[in-house]
Amino acid sequence: MSETAARMPAPAEAAGPERLIYFSDAVIAIAITLLALELPTPSGGVHGNAGVLGFLGEHAAEYVAFLISFAAVAMHWLIHQRLFRYVTGLDGRMIRWNLLWLLMIVLMPFTTKLLTSEVDAFQVQFTVYAADQALAGLFLVLALSDLRRHGLLKPNTPIEAIDNGTEFVTAVVVMFTLSIPVAFVTNWAALCWLLLPLLRKGVQLVRRLG
Amino acid sequence: MSETAARMPAPAEAAGPERLIYFSDAVIAIAITLLALELPTPSGGVHGNAGVLGFLGEHAAEYVAFLISFAAVAMHWLIHQRLFRYVTGLDGRMIRWNLLWLLMIVLMPFTTKLLTSEVDAFQVQFTVYAADQALAGLFLVLALSDLRRHGLLKPNTPIEAIDNGTEFVTAVVVMFTLSIPVAFVTNWAALCWLLLPLLRKGVQLVRRLG
Amino acid sequence: MSETAARMPAPAEAAGPERLIYFSDAVIAIAITLLALELPTPSGGVHGNAGVLGFLGEHAAEYVAFLISFAAVAMHWLIHQRLFRYVTGLDGRMIRWNLLWLLMIVLMPFTTKLLTSEVDAFQVQFTVYAADQALAGLFLVLALSDLRRHGLLKPNTPIEAIDNGTEFVTAVVVMFTLSIPVAFVTNWAALCWLLLPLLRKGVQLVRRLG
Amino acid sequence: MSETAARMPAPAEAAGPERLIYFSDAVIAIAITLLALELPTPSGGVHGNAGVLGFLGEHAAEYVAFLISFAAVAMHWLIHQRLFRYVTGLDGRMIRWNLLWLLMIVLMPFTTKLLTSEVDAFQVQFTVYAADQALAGLFLVLALSDLRRHGLLKPNTPIEAIDNGTEFVTAVVVMFTLSIPVAFVTNWAALCWLLLPLLRKGVQLVRRLG
Repeated sequence: MSETAARMPAPAEAAGPERLIYFSDAVIAIAITLLALELPTPSGGVHGNAGVLGFLGEHAAEYVAFLISFAAVAMHWLIHQRLFRYVTGLDGRMIRWNLLWLLMIVLMPFTTKLLTSEVDAFQVQFTVYAADQALAGLFLVLALSDLRRHGLLKPNTPIEAIDNGTEFVTAVVVMFTLSIPVAFVTNWAALCWLLLPLLRKGVQLVRRLG
Repeated sequence: MSETAARMPAPAEAAGPERLIYFSDAVIAIAITLLALELPTPSGGVHGNAGVLGFLGEHAAEYVAFLISFAAVAMHWLIHQRLFRYVTGLDGRMIRWNLLWLLMIVLMPFTTKLLTSEVDAFQVQFTVYAADQALAGLFLVLALSDLRRHGLLKPNTPIEAIDNGTEFVTAVVVMFTLSIPVAFVTNWAALCWLLLPLLRKGVQLVRRLG
Repeated sequence: MSETAARMPAPAEAAGPERLIYFSDAVIAIAITLLALELPTPSGGVHGNAGVLGFLGEHAAEYVAFLISFAAVAMHWLIHQRLFRYVTGLDGRMIRWNLLWLLMIVLMPFTTKLLTSEVDAFQVQFTVYAADQALAGLFLVLALSDLRRHGLLKPNTPIEAIDNGTEFVTAVVVMFTLSIPVAFVTNWAALCWLLLPLLRKGVQLVRRLG
Repeated sequence: MSETAARMPAPAEAAGPERLIYFSDAVIAIAITLLALELPTPSGGVHGNAGVLGFLGEHAAEYVAFLISFAAVAMHWLIHQRLFRYVTGLDGRMIRWNLLWLLMIVLMPFTTKLLTSEVDAFQVQFTVYAADQALAGLFLVLALSDLRRHGLLKPNTPIEAIDNGTEFVTAVVVMFTLSIPVAFVTNWAALCWLLLPLLRKGVQLVRRLG
C-alpha cells in the first residue's frame, strides 16, 4: 500500500482546508493593514491647520485609493470566507490557484502605491493596478471552479452560493479588464468600476443561457 | 430548496463566527505592532547620553501617543474577545460593521503618526485622531447591537455582559466625540479623555432611564 | 441570575485561553519578523565585493543585535507555549499582564534599533534595551504567578513545569536588571548576559530555600 | 511522580503541534507579505508612461527576485503544511530546528533586498542569498528527520510522503549550495536553479542506493 501511496499525485489530496484558510487569512490581514502604512502624513514645510488641510486635500487621491484597495481586499476575504466553509478537501491544483491569488493580494499595497505616485503616467499606473485586481479575481474564480469540478465541496453545499460568488468575482474580473483599454482613451477609466452591478447581471445571464 | 437558497439574503447568514474572529485578531495584532514601527530613533546629529536623552524627551509626545493608541487598540480587542465568545452566527450586516471597525483600527497607526507630526495644526490633527477613535467605537457598538437584535447570541448569554460592553464603548464614543469641539477651544482637549469613568456612569443612567 | 451576573467581576473570568494565545502568537510573529525589517543594506556609495563585505562588517553590531532579539522573542514564545497549554481559564488581571508583556515585545524592534543606532550613547541605549527585556520577563512572571494563585491551571498540570519556566524567566529578569548598572561602568555590560545559567541556579536555590 | 517530571527533558515533549504550526504560519505569512514592501516605485524625476515603463524595466531584477523569493517561501510553506499534518507531538530539538528555519525565512526579505541592491558585488550578494535559502532548507530537513527518528509521526503516516518531501528539500539545499561556488565563476549562477528536477532525481537515487 505504501508503494501505491508513492505513485499517488500528492499526499495533500486528502488534506483538510483549515491550514490553507488560516494562512490565507493571515496574508490578507497583513496586506490590508500594510495598505495604510503608505498613507502620506505631512512633515517639514507644512504648517498650521490650513496647511495640513491643504496637504490632505492634495493627497486625496491616495486616501481614496487606500479605501478602494481596502474594499477590494475585504471583498476578496468576504467571498473566500463565504465559500471556503463548504470545502472538505484540497488538491494540489487548488492550492496553487490559492497561492497565486495570495500573490496578487500581496502585490496590492505595491500597485496601490504605484497608482497614486506622482509620475504622470496614468495609462501604465492604471493598467498595472487593474491587471493586479483582475488577476486576483481570475485566480479566485479558477480556485472556485476547481473546487466544483473535483468534488472538494461538502455534500450539502448550496450550489447557488458557489454560483453567486463565482458570478460576482467573474464580474469583477470583467470590470477591471474592460477598464484597461478605456484608460487609454480617458483618465476617467475608474468610472468603469461603477458598472459592476450591470456586469454582474450580464455574467448571470450569460451563464444561465450558456 | 436550492431555488429558495438563491433568493436567501446571503449564505453567510448561518456561518460560525470563528473565521471573522480569527481575521479580526490578525488585523488587530498587525495594527498594534505597526504602531511601534513609527517610533522615532535618534540618528545623525544626535550624540552622547545627554543628546539621546534630549532627543527622547523632545519626542515624548510621540511615545505617549504610541502608548495611548496601544491602549485603545488593546481595549477594542478586549471588548471584542469578551463579547464575541457569545456569538453563534453571523449575518452580512454584522460582518460589514466588523469590517468598518477594522478599517478604523487599520487607520490608527496613520492617525497616531499624524497626531504627533510637527506641523503645528492641533485642531486638524486632534480631530482626525479623535474621529478615527470615535468611529471605531461606533462601528463596534453597531456590530454589538446588530448581534442582539438579530438573535446571533448563544441562548445562555449573560445580557449584562453585552450591556456593560456596549455601555463602555458608547462612553468611549461620546468621550472622543466631545473632545473634538473642545480641541477648538484649548490644546488640552486630550484631558477630556479622563472623563471616561464619568461618561460611563452617564451612559448607564441614560440607558436605564430610557 | 442575570442580576448576579451584572455584579460578577467580569465575564472574561470563565473564558477559554484560546483567543488570548492566538492573539499573542500573532503579535509575537509580527514583532519577530519586523526585527529583520530594519537590517541595514548597502546602497549608494558602497561598491564591489570588498565594499559590501566592509559594509556588512561595519554593521556587524546590528546583525548581532537582531540575532539576540530574535532569540529573546523566540525564548518568550517558547516559554509561553510550553506553559499556557496548561491554562484552563483567564481572569482580567492575567489578561492585563499578558497585554503588558505583549507591549514590551512590540517595543523590541524599536529598542533593538535604538541599541545599535550610531549615537555614541551606550548607557542610555543599553538601559532602554535591557529595561524592555527585563520588563517583558517581569510581566510574564506576573502572568504565570497569577495563573497559579487563581487556580487557572488544569488539575493535572506538572507544577515542576510551571516552576522551571518561572525560574528561568526570573533569571532572565535578574540578568537584564543587573546588567543595567554594569553598563555605567563598562561598555562590555552585555557580557553579563552570559551569566544566565549561573543566575538560574541561584534563582532555583533561593526559591527552594525560601 | 512530580519529582520524576522535574527530571524529564522538558514538558514540551508531549505537546501537540498546533501552536507551533500556527506560529510558523503567521511568521511565514508576514515574511511573504513584507517581500513586496520593498518593491521599488517610481518617484521624483520619473515622468510619463515611457518614463515609468523605463523605470519598471530598469528594476526588473528586483521584481523577478521578489517572485523567486515569493515562490521559495510558498514552497517552504507547502512542504511544511503537507508534512506537518502527520505530526502528533513535538520535542525540544524539533522546535529548535523549526525556529531556526523560521529565522532563515524571516531573513528572506533582507537577503532579497541585498541581492538586488545596486552595489556591484555579485559574489557577496548571491552567496548571502543562496546561503539563506540553503540553510532554510537544511533546517527543514533536520526538523523532518527529527520527526522520523523520534516517533513524532502518526501511526498511519505514509512514509513516502515524508520521504518525497525530504528528498525535494534536500535537492533544494544541494541546488543553492552548488550555485555558490558557481557564482565565483559566472554571474549566471542563478541558472543552476534550473537543475532542481535533475538534482531531485539524483537525491532520490542516492537515498535508494544508500
